[in-house]
Amino acid sequence: MDHKIIITIAREYGSGGREIGKQLAEQLKIPFYDKELITRTAEESGIDPDLFENADEKPSNPFWTSLAFNIGTFGSHIPTINDLPMNDRLFLLQSKTIRKIAEEGSCVIVGRCADYILEKEENIIRFFIHADREDKLNRVIHSYGIPEEGAQEFMKKTDRRRATYYDYYVGEKWGQINRYDLSINSSTLGIQSTVDLLLKFVKQINA
Amino acid sequence: MDHKIIITIAREYGSGGREIGKQLAEQLKIPFYDKELITRTAEESGIDPDLFENADEKPSNPFWTSLAFNIGTFGSHIPTINDLPMNDRLFLLQSKTIRKIAEEGSCVIVGRCADYILEKEENIIRFFIHADREDKLNRVIHSYGIPEEGAQEFMKKTDRRRATYYDYYVGEKWGQINRYDLSINSSTLGIQSTVDLLLKFVKQINA
Repeated sequence: MDHKIIITIAREYGSGGREIGKQLAEQLKIPFYDKELITRTAEESGIDPDLFENADEKPSNPFWTSLAFNIGTFGSHIPTINDLPMNDRLFLLQSKTIRKIAEEGSCVIVGRCADYILEKEENIIRFFIHADREDKLNRVIHSYGIPEEGAQEFMKKTDRRRATYYDYYVGEKWGQINRYDLSINSSTLGIQSTVDLLLKFVKQINA
Repeated sequence: MDHKIIITIAREYGSGGREIGKQLAEQLKIPFYDKELITRTAEESGIDPDLFENADEKPSNPFWTSLAFNIGTFGSHIPTINDLPMNDRLFLLQSKTIRKIAEEGSCVIVGRCADYILEKEENIIRFFIHADREDKLNRVIHSYGIPEEGAQEFMKKTDRRRATYYDYYVGEKWGQINRYDLSINSSTLGIQSTVDLLLKFVKQINA
């Protein structure tokens, strides 16, 4: 890579977005962050990563956040980030880590509102990966090992959770066409050719 | 082109979607339809194209459509397409023309709900072109010759009309990420490189 480039990948559950991002990072020889963000945020904040795991890409319950700030949960001390519910803490600490990673150099970051957190970055490219329902279901069952019974419901719930997470922290609808430089249905070309196309897109920007 | 391929292009006003579609058609050496659809629909239906022009990509007023069908406007005869308001007539006749064009062979069709009308086609590729607000405004003023004063409002209104048209005849929100194989911000790469990327996409499908 001649120039620094920050690639964010938002993705429907089962669309292969993680795999596409991983291959893209490998081909561009730049770091890749998905679940890796949890480990790094935990390292940098000194918080047990297991505590984070359950809060990953899940919005806080606004009731608890508001309660913590408004009804004197803190007693007499000034509220800090440590008083917030874990989901909000993770979002804030993770945002800090995401900004730091982007400062370090080129990278691929999957999910976690990175397209919003880094939207002011000059060299950001924002992708959204979706896919046909049947393909997503197949991938969820056969690659992710989710039991067939209930897989569709699980898929729906995961995307609904991602949408709520985005809406909660960004204040905008998840998956809006205008928020991305390129959105692609990975079913149309398949994973490999989708990676090739995204590579071409990245290289044309850097040309 | 080795295989038949039907390309539909939905586009925000000012995004350069028409230009992109035109270049795509030229490079693939296949017919291109935008305003040309009006002429052809007029030819095939025997209706004056000037009557169609005002109804192009505008939804009907549901009040008149419903009135025409429900409150005896037709007197005693059985209602036909000729009794419908011009906008509905144009949509129906144009849909017929669009299906006929798709049957004839490979083509590029801009707007007019073609992605919906042809969604059952096996060889359909559905693109959506959007762009940054500033670029759209520039194009609208300097290429389309819309007076600077009021250009932004005109741009907004045109897109709102396209959205209403789509919603009215398709029953779904216009510009939903999942309805397209690929959606692209033409500001990121510029018109020429966007055309190149879409060409690569089309060729990968046909590979």
